[in-house]
Amino acid sequence: MFEQLGLIGCGLMGGSFALALKRARLVKRVVGYSKSPSTTARARQLGVIDAEASSALLAVSGADLVLLAVPVAATETTLKTIRHLITPQMLIMDVGSTKRDVVDAARRTLKIQVGQFVPCHPVTGREVSGVDYADADLYTNKQLVITPIDRTQPAKIEKADALWRAIGSNVIQMSPEQHDTAFAAISHLPHMIAFALMNSIAAQPEGNTFLSLAGPGFRDFSRIAAGDPQMWRDVLMANREEMGHQLQHFQDALAALTKEIAEGNTSELERLINRASVARARWSTAAGKPAAG
Amino acid sequence: MFEQLGLIGCGLMGGSFALALKRARLVKRVVGYSKSPSTTARARQLGVIDAEASSALLAVSGADLVLLAVPVAATETTLKTIRHLITPQMLIMDVGSTKRDVVDAARRTLKIQVGQFVPCHPVTGREVSGVDYADADLYTNKQLVITPIDRTQPAKIEKADALWRAIGSNVIQMSPEQHDTAFAAISHLPHMIAFALMNSIAAQPEGNTFLSLAGPGFRDFSRIAAGDPQMWRDVLMANREEMGHQLQHFQDALAALTKEIAEGNTSELERLINRASVARARWSTAAGKPAAG
Repeated sequence: MFEQLGLIGCGLMGGSFALALKRARLVKRVVGYSKSPSTTARARQLGVIDAEASSALLAVSGADLVLLAVPVAATETTLKTIRHLITPQMLIMDVGSTKRDVVDAARRTLKIQVGQFVPCHPVTGREVSGVDYADADLYTNKQLVITPIDRTQPAKIEKADALWRAIGSNVIQMSPEQHDTAFAAISHLPHMIAFALMNSIAAQPEGNTFLSLAGPGFRDFSRIAAGDPQMWRDVLMANREEMGHQLQHFQDALAALTKEIAEGNTSELERLINRASVARARWSTAAGKPAAG
Repeated sequence: MFEQLGLIGCGLMGGSFALALKRARLVKRVVGYSKSPSTTARARQLGVIDAEASSALLAVSGADLVLLAVPVAATETTLKTIRHLITPQMLIMDVGSTKRDVVDAARRTLKIQVGQFVPCHPVTGREVSGVDYADADLYTNKQLVITPIDRTQPAKIEKADALWRAIGSNVIQMSPEQHDTAFAAISHLPHMIAFALMNSIAAQPEGNTFLSLAGPGFRDFSRIAAGDPQMWRDVLMANREEMGHQLQHFQDALAALTKEIAEGNTSELERLINRASVARARWSTAAGKPAAG
């Protein structure tokens, strides 16, 4: 049980976390801050937070739990702003979709206090953003990746682990590097591809006619293209290196298909398609009910 | 009301068409043929067809309605086999996902009888194939594209139009060329991309670890990668020209994103992502309940 959650960023992710903690009776009081005062006011109005803070620093003051739920690019500035009020018993977490940039920012800004910062990535989200969509179930049965560094205090990792499990998340641990490589492949690159496909169609004179014919196959394939532009801008920038590697793998696989089509090697083409089809079918079987994100 | 449907290809598409016609009491008798005798037998066993034909020609004999539900690459051979038993009142249709190759095959093989052939593309499907998945509702509330040529008989188009509407399809008409361009953009290229992404991940040593972290975003994006390899092999081959153009548009859009990421133009990157996000959001609003496919 925590006395006070200092919530920095009262959007979909932060707001949902506050609601989940409140429902599970894991926190007595939530003090929230958002860059835009209207968001903070709305969060208060919706009962997502109990009190509005006029700055990130004031949101942290007196808290024993702090959650950063800001665009990853804002992590360093935010940590700089709050570091003076960090107390030894304070557990600090984030919810960023990239982890190497976040732990680097934490190392630079928190210095010896970096041990109290537990980097987290909840594998969940929506194609909508904002506190109005905050949902106490956003993290239920979803994967939660903790990416500790050498200096992260084991006691703080345990605390974070227990907390996320208590609100229904399935907690797994890996290094920030492993995390960023894996998510470049299964999330960041697919988003970049979906953005590119939507833009390539929208840029064509007949684009709207094309889209009027699209069905569920296209609907599902392109769903992630509706993601929050500011968030994805930061994710693509932060993980550009790993994404570059994954993009190369993808281009190679695409070139292999293109080659067989151009050369009319139908049997080889079928073999390549079959490999993809089997891999996808095997995954959905293995995944069962996959975590959101 | 038709006397007899000659069904050539008793798989998911053909079987579902037969079931839909039977349920709507639009046909008295269904005679089916499949390349594999076990499929034909199974279709009979499931009540999808009433009688098994030992050849495509025999399936057509005495029919006033014929549906070709075979891989598009098999269209020409199939039409050659059946043309000798085509009578003037016979309505012949296909369900191929590409149309230019199909109408070319029909022109070559049917000669003057080509007017009785109404090229159709039901915008629907499943990530499973085979008669066991045949479903009387596969075409309900789905788009059905008719792509007539100059020589297609207006009376036969009307008949086909009324038939598909009677089983719940939303019928639209366009030229085979318009069709193949549009579907290259919204269906064929997305499938090719999904195949490539699955292969690029599966080919990496840590591929399975990556996949174990994937959630609904990836699940939806990659769903179409599980499509039937033989069918998609034929579609990608048949429409390779249009797909090549669409692939170029896609590569340009992907390069634009890559450039802004590499140069760190975050505002321009956000603008590009926002364009995609808005286009996708606008589409889903416009699409309402989009047709399957």
